Amino acid sequence: MKILVSEYAGFCFGVERAINIVKSSAKDKQKIYTLGPLIHNPQVVRNLEKKGVYVIEDIDKISDGDSVVIRSHGITKDIQKKLKKKNINIIDATCPYVKNAQEKAEYLKENDYRVIIYGEKKHPEVKAILSYTDYTGMVLEKTDDFTSTQKQDKYGIVSQTTRNLENFSKICKKIIHYSAECRVFNTICNATYKRQKDAVKIARNVDFMIIVGGKNSANTTKLYNIVNEIIPAIHIETAAELEEDNLKKYKKIGITAGASTPEYLINEVVKFLNKIDRGGN
Amino acid sequence: MKILVSEYAGFCFGVERAINIVKSSAKDKQKIYTLGPLIHNPQVVRNLEKKGVYVIEDIDKISDGDSVVIRSHGITKDIQKKLKKKNINIIDATCPYVKNAQEKAEYLKENDYRVIIYGEKKHPEVKAILSYTDYTGMVLEKTDDFTSTQKQDKYGIVSQTTRNLENFSKICKKIIHYSAECRVFNTICNATYKRQKDAVKIARNVDFMIIVGGKNSANTTKLYNIVNEIIPAIHIETAAELEEDNLKKYKKIGITAGASTPEYLINEVVKFLNKIDRGGN
Repeated sequence: MKILVSEYAGFCFGVERAINIVKSSAKDKQKIYTLGPLIHNPQVVRNLEKKGVYVIEDIDKISDGDSVVIRSHGITKDIQKKLKKKNINIIDATCPYVKNAQEKAEYLKENDYRVIIYGEKKHPEVKAILSYTDYTGMVLEKTDDFTSTQKQDKYGIVSQTTRNLENFSKICKKIIHYSAECRVFNTICNATYKRQKDAVKIARNVDFMIIVGGKNSANTTKLYNIVNEIIPAIHIETAAELEEDNLKKYKKIGITAGASTPEYLINEVVKFLNKIDRGGN
Repeated sequence: MKILVSEYAGFCFGVERAINIVKSSAKDKQKIYTLGPLIHNPQVVRNLEKKGVYVIEDIDKISDGDSVVIRSHGITKDIQKKLKKKNINIIDATCPYVKNAQEKAEYLKENDYRVIIYGEKKHPEVKAILSYTDYTGMVLEKTDDFTSTQKQDKYGIVSQTTRNLENFSKICKKIIHYSAECRVFNTICNATYKRQKDAVKIARNVDFMIIVGGKNSANTTKLYNIVNEIIPAIHIETAAELEEDNLKKYKKIGITAGASTPEYLINEVVKFLNKIDRGGN
């Protein structure tokens, strides 16, 4: 059996960084809170709990002296202010790409641009970016959402970091028609794009594909859907869900994983397949 | 006979302004030179000559004390400097829209943007804009001319004032893919667009169309070509070229004119047609 593992499987830079920050902080502190689950992977969140890292949703429940982690997609300026007023230790694990989008949105707002954010209105990352325009920005989920026909002196545009660059540039193209000046900051991180593109490439060269990642992870589910349109596939959280009898018929199996899937979970799948190859688990 | 005259026929704002500047200067001065013909209309240029306004191509032939007009599409920074060194009176009739494009290009260059100019390489307006980037800018005539695949930190884009906005925004869309920041100044004046669009609208509602303007005027010739694809049409410089016998068969005649055509030449055509209607010239 030939096994192909995507070079873009698993943690993106921002997630890996956030986990490393939390792990190194957990060594020194007794108890750490993350504002919402650090990542959408139950295994990782459970492992962190064992190390004293707990999920909290309500910042009012945080006591003096506690440590709180801001997760990779950032928080609003308002919550940031509230946190700063408390006597707590703030550990900022906001992804640098997200931080860049926040800073650019704030800069544009401060320099009198009408700010446009391309992204999902309900996504915490977008809510955080919007707060940096003091809620004067306009969030567009798709090109058709821009319906203004009035010309504006200065438009400033940023994007949610995980959006598609082609669609982002289409929105910008439209807005250029309605502005004397249009300043575009390309704040897209193309890790998602590369991961999806590589998954498709592998799917076209194997008989079966295994997608590893949290069932609650949107990007892992998206990966599974894309791949499953091409060949038979399975979305699992851990190797324990695999069945030898179903797999041994395949000659070539591909593996990829969402941005919140740790490497050890991918390695366990590879080990499982290697054992089948050597005569059974 | 019904006569339809385009509301966008004739002088654009920049041309009208340049002619007014020259005319009011001609009242006070004995002799005025224009650097190249002020506009591409032989009748207007001849009339100006009668008022002491002469065309000159070589600035070395200008003597101390002379007055020199910079025409609406501007001149390069280099020639501007040379003129300033001479003891002459400079009358700047650069179109404010062109001046804006020059200033934006200079601003972008000074702020470390890689400057892109969308326009015709050989056009005097584009040559002048390019000089404001100290010749570090890149002129693109069409989207395919942008072949760079290297990502640039900062791209700054301006356009020749008479270009098409849709094509301009397409070029910008492409460049957004290759830049962390892309700053677009929409320096297009849409007089040309409006004139062409209205000519097409009229052409679809008449039997014949008369296009008035210099035979050496590129924008008038373009107007004629666009209209002539829809209905029979004629490109004339003056009403003297019209023939009654050819025209009296039409029930509806449309009239438009290039950006360098003075109103009196359009009015003469209207008068000629009205006379046919009343029983002959």
